[in-house]
This record gives sequence, C-alpha cells and structure tokens, in this order.
Amino acid sequence: MTKNTALVVSAHSADFVWRAGGAIALHAAAGWDVTVVCLSYGERGESAKLWRKPGMTLEKVKSERQVEAENAARHLGVADIQFWDLGDYPITLGKDVLFRLADLYRAVRPSWVMTHSRLDPYNADHVAVSAFAQEARIVAQAHGHDPATPVIGAPPVYLFEPHQPEQCSWKPDTILNITDAWDKKRAAIECMQGQEHLWEYYTRVALQRGVQGGRNSGTPMTYGEAYESVFPAVVTTLG
Amino acid sequence: MTKNTALVVSAHSADFVWRAGGAIALHAAAGWDVTVVCLSYGERGESAKLWRKPGMTLEKVKSERQVEAENAARHLGVADIQFWDLGDYPITLGKDVLFRLADLYRAVRPSWVMTHSRLDPYNADHVAVSAFAQEARIVAQAHGHDPATPVIGAPPVYLFEPHQPEQCSWKPDTILNITDAWDKKRAAIECMQGQEHLWEYYTRVALQRGVQGGRNSGTPMTYGEAYESVFPAVVTTLG
Amino acid sequence: MTKNTALVVSAHSADFVWRAGGAIALHAAAGWDVTVVCLSYGERGESAKLWRKPGMTLEKVKSERQVEAENAARHLGVADIQFWDLGDYPITLGKDVLFRLADLYRAVRPSWVMTHSRLDPYNADHVAVSAFAQEARIVAQAHGHDPATPVIGAPPVYLFEPHQPEQCSWKPDTILNITDAWDKKRAAIECMQGQEHLWEYYTRVALQRGVQGGRNSGTPMTYGEAYESVFPAVVTTLG
Amino acid sequence: MTKNTALVVSAHSADFVWRAGGAIALHAAAGWDVTVVCLSYGERGESAKLWRKPGMTLEKVKSERQVEAENAARHLGVADIQFWDLGDYPITLGKDVLFRLADLYRAVRPSWVMTHSRLDPYNADHVAVSAFAQEARIVAQAHGHDPATPVIGAPPVYLFEPHQPEQCSWKPDTILNITDAWDKKRAAIECMQGQEHLWEYYTRVALQRGVQGGRNSGTPMTYGEAYESVFPAVVTTLG
Amino acid sequence: MTKNTALVVSAHSADFVWRAGGAIALHAAAGWDVTVVCLSYGERGESAKLWRKPGMTLEKVKSERQVEAENAARHLGVADIQFWDLGDYPITLGKDVLFRLADLYRAVRPSWVMTHSRLDPYNADHVAVSAFAQEARIVAQAHGHDPATPVIGAPPVYLFEPHQPEQCSWKPDTILNITDAWDKKRAAIECMQGQEHLWEYYTRVALQRGVQGGRNSGTPMTYGEAYESVFPAVVTTLG
Amino acid sequence: MTKNTALVVSAHSADFVWRAGGAIALHAAAGWDVTVVCLSYGERGESAKLWRKPGMTLEKVKSERQVEAENAARHLGVADIQFWDLGDYPITLGKDVLFRLADLYRAVRPSWVMTHSRLDPYNADHVAVSAFAQEARIVAQAHGHDPATPVIGAPPVYLFEPHQPEQCSWKPDTILNITDAWDKKRAAIECMQGQEHLWEYYTRVALQRGVQGGRNSGTPMTYGEAYESVFPAVVTTLG
Repeated sequence: MTKNTALVVSAHSADFVWRAGGAIALHAAAGWDVTVVCLSYGERGESAKLWRKPGMTLEKVKSERQVEAENAARHLGVADIQFWDLGDYPITLGKDVLFRLADLYRAVRPSWVMTHSRLDPYNADHVAVSAFAQEARIVAQAHGHDPATPVIGAPPVYLFEPHQPEQCSWKPDTILNITDAWDKKRAAIECMQGQEHLWEYYTRVALQRGVQGGRNSGTPMTYGEAYESVFPAVVTTLG
Repeated sequence: MTKNTALVVSAHSADFVWRAGGAIALHAAAGWDVTVVCLSYGERGESAKLWRKPGMTLEKVKSERQVEAENAARHLGVADIQFWDLGDYPITLGKDVLFRLADLYRAVRPSWVMTHSRLDPYNADHVAVSAFAQEARIVAQAHGHDPATPVIGAPPVYLFEPHQPEQCSWKPDTILNITDAWDKKRAAIECMQGQEHLWEYYTRVALQRGVQGGRNSGTPMTYGEAYESVFPAVVTTLG
Repeated sequence: MTKNTALVVSAHSADFVWRAGGAIALHAAAGWDVTVVCLSYGERGESAKLWRKPGMTLEKVKSERQVEAENAARHLGVADIQFWDLGDYPITLGKDVLFRLADLYRAVRPSWVMTHSRLDPYNADHVAVSAFAQEARIVAQAHGHDPATPVIGAPPVYLFEPHQPEQCSWKPDTILNITDAWDKKRAAIECMQGQEHLWEYYTRVALQRGVQGGRNSGTPMTYGEAYESVFPAVVTTLG
Repeated sequence: MTKNTALVVSAHSADFVWRAGGAIALHAAAGWDVTVVCLSYGERGESAKLWRKPGMTLEKVKSERQVEAENAARHLGVADIQFWDLGDYPITLGKDVLFRLADLYRAVRPSWVMTHSRLDPYNADHVAVSAFAQEARIVAQAHGHDPATPVIGAPPVYLFEPHQPEQCSWKPDTILNITDAWDKKRAAIECMQGQEHLWEYYTRVALQRGVQGGRNSGTPMTYGEAYESVFPAVVTTLG
Repeated sequence: MTKNTALVVSAHSADFVWRAGGAIALHAAAGWDVTVVCLSYGERGESAKLWRKPGMTLEKVKSERQVEAENAARHLGVADIQFWDLGDYPITLGKDVLFRLADLYRAVRPSWVMTHSRLDPYNADHVAVSAFAQEARIVAQAHGHDPATPVIGAPPVYLFEPHQPEQCSWKPDTILNITDAWDKKRAAIECMQGQEHLWEYYTRVALQRGVQGGRNSGTPMTYGEAYESVFPAVVTTLG
Repeated sequence: MTKNTALVVSAHSADFVWRAGGAIALHAAAGWDVTVVCLSYGERGESAKLWRKPGMTLEKVKSERQVEAENAARHLGVADIQFWDLGDYPITLGKDVLFRLADLYRAVRPSWVMTHSRLDPYNADHVAVSAFAQEARIVAQAHGHDPATPVIGAPPVYLFEPHQPEQCSWKPDTILNITDAWDKKRAAIECMQGQEHLWEYYTRVALQRGVQGGRNSGTPMTYGEAYESVFPAVVTTLG
C-alpha cells in the first residue's frame, strides 16, 4: 500500500518548525511521510544570535543551523529533510533549482504542499520562495517536462502563517487542530537555539489559533496552526 | 439518532434552485434534512415572464412562484420549505424577522448554512439577505436571546454563486461535486417556468464548475457547484 | 425622434456641479436632456460659509442653496433639476423615495446614470445615496414594479469623483474630455457662492484629469472629468 | 489650560477594555480626560457565563455588566463612562442617538476617537457601531447641526483590534507601546468576571503586538495595542 | 490610408484562440491587421494530449502546435502570426526579447493590445507574459529607445480571460459582442487538436459572456468575449 | 552629536524632485543629512524633450539629466546625491547593486526611507525599484551580511506619490505639510528643463495634498506631499 505523503518548502531552515511543525507532526504520527526542503539555512538573515558569538563564520552558522533543523525534524517525525544551501538575503532561485524542485514533487507525489505567504514586506526570501514553490508544482504537472516520469495531480497548496499576518495580506481559511501534536512542536521549537526569542511568540500564535479554532467550529481546542489555501477545495460533502 | 441538518436562506423563491440545488439534493440523498427559507417570492423583480401574461396580478405571480418552488423542492428532496413573503425589490427585513430567522436556526441546528454573496451590484435584495442571514446566525449564538432555548454552535456559512461572479467580488473556495445529484437539480431547474432563459445558463455554470473541480483536484468530474466560505474551516487533517 | 437622456443623482445640491458638471454640459450641448435630482440641499453639512452669516436659518440656507444650484444648472444646460429636500447629515432615504426615484428612472429612461462613489469616510450621505441610486435603478428594471409602465434597460452607472479619491477606494476607469465644456463648468462652479474654497480645488482636479487623459490616450487634452463604472461596458469594437 | 481629551465608542460594555484599555490608561496617566460610551451592555450576546447562572434576567445581566465596566474604567482612569443601553444583537441605532453622539463629540472635543473595525463577520453590532461612530463625527463637523454649538475639527479615528483580525480585513497601521500601562489594563481585564475565557487571550494579543512593535521600530517593547487609522495622518516631520 | 492594427501577445501558441479569437476575427473582418505573437509553443506545459502519443519529442510537439496555431490564425483572419519559441514552463524572457517586442509594438503601432491576466495561480507563464507585454509597451513609448524610430502612443491594453477567472483576481470591465465572429472562433478552436477537452469549455465561456453582455447592455446577444482593461478609457461622450 | 539622516531611493534622476522634494527640503532645513540615490538617469524613458533636440546621444542626455538633478539637489539641500547609472526602461538590478544599496543603508543609517509605489502600470522601473529598495533594507538588517558592520534598525519606509495614484493602488496615509519648503521644491522643479510639462502638474499635486491635509487635520495648510507607509508606525502617544 502506498503511504500518504506531503511536501513542505521552507525558505530558511527554521521556517518549517514555526509555521508547519504542527501539521508535520500530526501527519507523521498518522503514518504520513513528510518531506521538508530547506532551500537555504537562513545563515545571513535569520541567525542574529549566532552571529553575536565570537569567531563565527558563514560555514559555522550553516552547520549549527543544519544541526538544529535536523534535531527539530526528528522531533516532528519528518521522513526526509533536505538542505539545498541556496543562500539567503537574497535567496538565489534559477531554472535548474526549479526543475530540481519539480522533480522532487514528482518523487514525493504529495497529497498536500506547504510554503510561504505570497506577500511579506519583512522578508523578500519568503515571497520569492512562495512563487517559486508554486511554479515548481506547475512544472511538475507539465507532461512535456521529463516525459518519462509521470506528472503529478493537483495537490492543494497551503500558505503558512507569516510573522506579522495582517501586514502580509495573508488571510487564514483553514485552522488545523494541532493539540495532539503540540508537545512535539514545542520540542522542535526548542531545538532552535539561535532564535530563542521566538519560542514564546510562536507558542502564543498556536494558542491564539487554538481559541479561534474553537470559535469557528463551536468545539473548544487548545493549539492550532492556520493556513491560507491557494486553490479551491474540491469536496463531495459539506459541513 | 439525530439527523444531519442544513439551512438555506434564499432571498427569492428560485434562488435556492440555481445556486444551491446540487448541495441540497446531494445531502438530502444522503439522509440530511435540508430546510429552505424563501424570504420573498421574487414576485416583483424576478418574474418578468409571468408579468408578460395578460391579467397578471401580484397575488397570481406569488402563487405561481410558490408552486414552482415547491415542485423544485420536491425534486431536490427538501425536508421543509418555508415562504415568508417579505416582499422584494426591495425586500423588507426588520428585527422581528431577524428573531424569527434566529429561532429557525435554533430549531434546525444546521451543520451548514447557505445564503447569498456579500456584494451584488445587480441585486440589492441578495446583498441585504446575505448580511441578514449572517446576523441571524449570530443572534442564534447569543445566550441572552431566548435563554430557554439552547444556542447553536458555529455552523459554516457558504455563500452561493451570484449571476455574474466577478462583478460581485465573489471568489469560490469550495467546489462540490454534484454529478450524482445533477439529474435532480436539472429537474428542479425545469420547474422554474417563469425563468426558462436561465435553464441553460445554470447548466453551463454547473459544467464549468465541474471542469474546474477536476482541475483543482486532479480527478475529473462533470457537474459542480461552487461556494465562498465566510469562516475558516477547522480541520483535524489536511489534503 | 427621441432625444438622448441622462440622469444625475446628487446627494447635496452642489455635488452635480463639482463632480458631473463637465459631463452634463458636454451632453447638453450635444442635444441631450439631462435630469439632475438633488436629494437634499446639503443645508446642514455643506454650507459652512452660509452659516457664518448672522441670522441664518435652515430655510434660508436651503433657499440660497436652491438658487445657486438652479443658476449652475442653467449654465450647464440641465433640462430638469429637481430638489427633493430629504435632509442631510444624515439624509433620510426610505421606500417611498426609492419608488419615487425608480419612477423617475422610468420617466427619464436615461442612456447613462451618474451618482456618488460606493465608499467615502468623509461623507456618509454620499455612501447612502450611491447605494440608493443603484437600488432604484434595479427597481426600475423590475417588471412587477408598476407593471403598467415599461421597465428600463440597463443604463451604465458612473460613479463620480469624491473629494479624496484614494481614501474612497474609488478608481477611475473612464476619463471624459470636457475641454469644450470647461467654460460652462467653471461658470457653474462660480455659482456656488457658499463653497468658494472649492472653486480652485475642482479646477485643478479637472486639469489633473486632463493631463491624465492625455497620457492614457496619447492625445493631449486640457480638462477632464473621471468616473468609475459599476458595470462592464458592452461593445462591438475595441480601441 | 484646556485638558487633552479622547473619546472611545464601544458597542458593548467590555469592548473598550480588551481593545482600547492600554490607550485609555496611558493617556489618562498623562493627564487626558478620556470619555467612554458603552452603547449597550452586551447583555444578550456577550454574557454567556452570566446566563449560565440560575435565575438570571436581562436586568440582572445589565446590572452586573455595568458594575464590571465601571470597575474596569476606574482602573484605567476613565474620566467619564456612559451607558446608553441601546440593546444588543442587534443594537438599535437611530437618528436620535446619532445626534446624541454628535453632541457628545462636541462636548468632549476629542483629540482622537476610537471605535470598532469596519468589518467583522462574527459581530454585526461592531460593524454597525463603526459606521455609526464615524457618521456621528461627520455630523458633529456640520455647521448646520445645532448651529449654536461650535463644530469639531477633524480628530483622527482609530479602529481597534477585532477578535479575529484577518477575518475582518483589519490591518493595523499604528502600534501603541502600552508597556507602562499594562498593569492597569490587566487589572481592568480582570474586572470582566463574565468573560474570564478572554483574559489570557487578550494578554497574548498585547504580547504579540509588543513583539511586533519592537520589530517595526527596532526598539524592543513588551506590551502593545494595535489600531487601524481611518484617515491619513497630517504631520510636520517624518520618522 | 493607414489600416487599423492590433497586437495580441500570447504566452503559448493556443492562448490567442481561446481568449482573443473573437476579438481577432471581428476586427479582421472589419479590415484590421491583427498581429499575433506566440512567445512559446506551450510544448511542455500545454500539450498533454500530444505527449500521450508514442514517440513524441519536443520538436514534434512544437511543430504540431505551430501547424495548429497557423490553421487557427487563418480561420480568424490574422494578418501576421509569429512564433518566438522562447520555451515554456517556465518561459524565458530577457532584455533582448523585451526590446524585440518593443520594436514589434513600433512596427505594428497597434490601436489596442491584448495579453494575459496579471495573476494566475495555475499558470506562471501567463503571469510573466502579462508583465512582460506591458513593459515592452512602455519601452516602445520611450523616446530614448531606438531614437530613430517613432515612439508609439498609448494603446489600451486588454487582459483576456484566464481559465478560472475568480482565482486570478481578474474582473472583466469590457464585454465584446462576438456573435458575428463566432463561427470563425469555433473553427479556430477546432484546430486545437491537442486540447479538445477545452473546445466545449470555451464555447460555454462565450455563451455565458454573451448572456452577461445582454444583461449589462439591455440588448440580447449570443456570444461574448470579456476583458479587463489596464488603463482608463478616454472618451468624448458617455453611454 | 549624531545628525539625523534620511535616504531617498529614486529610480530616475528626477523622481526625487517631484515626489519627495518637499520632504527633503523640510528635513534638510531642520538639519538632517538627506542622501539621494538616483539609480538611473531616466535617459531613455523620461527625457522626451531632450531627445527632440538635434544630435542628441545617450551620453549627452545622461549628462544633462545629471546637471539638472544636481541643481535640484542643491536647492533642496540634499547632503549627498549619487548617480548609479544602471540604465532605464528597463533598469538593471542585480545582486551586486542590492549589496551596494544595503551597504549604503548601513553607511547612512537613515531614520526614514523613501522610494516608489509598489505598483505602477505606467512605469515598470518604479515597480522594480520599490521592491529592490525594500529588499536592500532587509539585507542591511541581516546580521550575516558583512558581519563587521553594524546592522541597521527598522527605519520606516514611505512610498511616494506616483503619477496617477488610483491606477497604482497607492493610498496615502501620511500627508506632510511642506508649505515652508515649497519655494525650494518649486525651485528644484524648475531645474528639470527636460520635463517642463510636469512643473504645473506637480504644483497642483502639492496644492491638492495641501487642501487634503487641512481637511484631515482641521488646520488649514497650503502645500502638501503625501506618502503611503509600508510598515505600522510605533508610537508612545496618539493624536
């Protein structure tokens, strides 16, 4: 029997933890194979604390960031985590990488995909990766791209929560109840030694989305993760 | 065992057919009790063909519209259809009717609700009813409204497709596969003798939404009905 | 031969001058019968200068405003100007007035209609009148409204320029070259003794829209008036 | 010397605490006279916990809500709190109350005004009050309204944070550092015995806005309150 | 006498048929010279059916696509069709091609231009081409670009209908009555052997836009094509 | 004592004059060091008048444009004006220039930044520069970029007024009273010999924004300059 699979495209090596950790842990616990691609380490732009250490170099930052991300991935139950080391601030995304990601879509054949919001005035890499991850999905659907490999279908794409949602024109339409996965997400969060200032911030995000999940469903829940869908959901029943 | 229930709030007595007929028939066939409220007959604004008959009066138009709607409801398997006769162009919506609708929400306790789009430059009644149906749902959630009757939870609200979607800032986020219910919807449509010019129009709408449903899911389907959600969906798994 | 006709629905008695004066004068000069309805005099909210005169009363303000508007209408070549004296700040708009305006639509049978922008945080009357004028047009299209009188077709509705366009989410899609009618518009503007502070403001608006009209057409022009359309234009050729 | 003044228009008797408590306490501490109008008690729609007590009546709910609000106001240093008891779910807002609020604007002559967001699919009263409070400000600017009393100028209007910001198209453009006033806001929050489930929620809101305030200014801060402005700020220097 | 001219910039070699075929045929029949540029063949991303044939290669797909497009162009009366073979999924658009297209603008001197919608989450090439075609027009207006060749004026740009309009934030503001040109458009559509699944889809699109054209004009029509304008129309009369 | 500083990123060498001249002159007069970067001369796209002179070459246009801009900068009191000569229509912006601009941010350490609007269908360079200037600011905040140089904080970014604001989805939220600096701005404007047709246009823009500034503050003023903020303002008091 084929396993269910999902693909998370993360601009920097910690994004998947803050923004998709609950979804990953929840699905992994249900037997899904979740693949995470970290396009860069966020070594220049998202490692302030590490850079304050004496004698720090770009390579050391990358290496620490990789260890942190691998540890987090282990807590979440990620099946495969890849580091493409494309640089950050700005990230460098060309046609070769586009095809590499399209090929990964075809290898993984995900039932859903997650990536960044379309807009973010605080983070140009996130914006670039959002468009890029969506375009790679389209290439993976194209029959003339590597015709020997079967195309993918039309997996839904979820855009995960940016740091300051309202400033990013990001409007959540889906709240996932991650209460059962929260311990794993929190453990993964605590692997991010270089960004300790964000631990409580994203714990509060989860609590707020939890309260909102309760409001929107009429059924109380504790921790939530919110996403914006790119495409309409196709369903056979409502409610 | 409690039956599943749904509530459709229709401004004029034919709207539920064109816009929600597939959802109604599909859920009715699955054993749901679907209640439809027609707030008016659309006797002034949506009965052009009837008014071309000699000797027509407001009462005759209403009466013919009611018969048509009842026939359509029968084809769709509607459990309860109500005609509130509030007038149209403009529809008259006051506090008493708001409470009456809130009470109906509490009586039906729907798992989902459907009504009109928020904006529609072609139809001021639709706009008024959309806000009204949403407000009644809020009143039905209020503990201080008729405290002796239990409040409702937070049923999702779907806004059905207006006649010219792009002009109404209406963006579908949900496509329901109504292929299995299509024959019933078409039969219901054909009950609308006064609006024969719309039969093929809404058949084509269903076919277009069907193609789009296939595109968005990767699985072909024939007939679809599309909706815009008012609130985020709360889920326990993605995909 | 039937004359071409147009209808301008103005919240206060000076709005048609600042916002539609060029369109009125241009079409009147081309032989159109333009009807202007001033729903109120703007006696409370748009007559600051008059209220600074000693001994002023509401009736005196209305009377001065009517004379000013009639003088302006004469300069523009308005065929019929009506004052409905519905009060302002807030304007009072009920079902009776809605039907009265619908009946006027049917009497005038306009080839185009003009009224206020949908939003305006500076002027709640303008917002109310915009919705009201659009709804009356819809009623006038309803076969069941006064069935003895023929319904109107679907005249385009133009929303004229508010005082601070960007704050009103108003985006012009049509620029009318009013250069040939400018002298008349300026003369009409100068009839507005109570709002002299706006004369130069709206002269500059006309010059700016003129420059923009040149930019958008590639053909220089001097004075323009800009509008936002409510409905798509239906055409038989492009360009 | 004239004191600085501000006006907060609150739909229900607790809204000013969650949404504007920091702003009120901060300005009160700086010597401002802040007036709060609670248009209703929220007795029907926002008092779930009270209604669960045996023997509760509408009058008892109102009375408890008033005591809570008065206690909260005391903690915040409100100069004047008024209860207009207009009912809720739905709130009843007519011309008389509009003029009463316009007159209050003139009596207070506020340097800034606060009220609800323009949209909120969860709370129709908030939407109604937002439009109403803005319209009353416009009436208070009208020279023909009660000509014997001086008109007000153009105080900025801030729309405070709704419960689920992204669902309300509410985008904050101003973050107020309320760290120094936090203890008072928390004390006021704890007066709201009937809504204890919201205490931690709005404490987290304050912490998140605090972090965001730090990000947007480059200067760390702890607690923040965010608002959306209705009108452009007019300034004499930037930065 | 100079002939009227128009320019259609099509990302893939079939787009001009589905999306602009009616406009092309109608204007060609009226004596216009319409130039069509197919920037790519859509050989990778829009030729699924061809790729299912055994022994298919990229060159064969391109060659079949070119034949199909040329046949379609003949039915529509296209004056000049060019294939720039820039690749697809993704299309490659650089400065050289930008200048080549700018030069084509100057050679054609079109009275109107058509290209893709600004946004399309299903098709990254369309998005890229929309921006590219608009930028080339701007370059063609620049006096310092190839100063020896006269600049163009300001031809209107129409964005044609994407496959799922509401998902592309595309709002039509212009509906062209293509009833008289329908037979030619349908004949051109039937040349697209590789995309037979779209024939009925775009026939229904034309019928729906036809009904909508009737609604918006008050004059019934059968087939329509809808567009969104980039720039305001500059006019000398309204209606 | 450290001087206050500001940074203006101008796509073409005249943009800073029309769009930010008042802000520059006002702050310079108050002792600020304002740095202006002209990324290109606008030699191809914004020098129509110069190209009409016989014997004109690209180098001559650039040279005249530089002289004009330097003269204007002198009138405004610019502390440092730089010409990066990156070409225009299209402007060429790569990673090297991104880092060069990031480094300039760090050298200047501005209290505020100004650049172009996010969208502009008339000017693709402006759109590119807006994104570019924002991204460079983000890079300048990254600790891993040139770790030896201190990062900058979070200076507010103001987007200045495009030529046709409503077409650019540009909504001003800040109006600066530039009355005291107007003479300098007008003198700077008159240095732009190649674009004399814009002198009166931008004078009228200043007058309109002046009137609007008066309306929004309740305090009359004569000349204004309007901007849209990218980020929320962080404040310690309101009003």
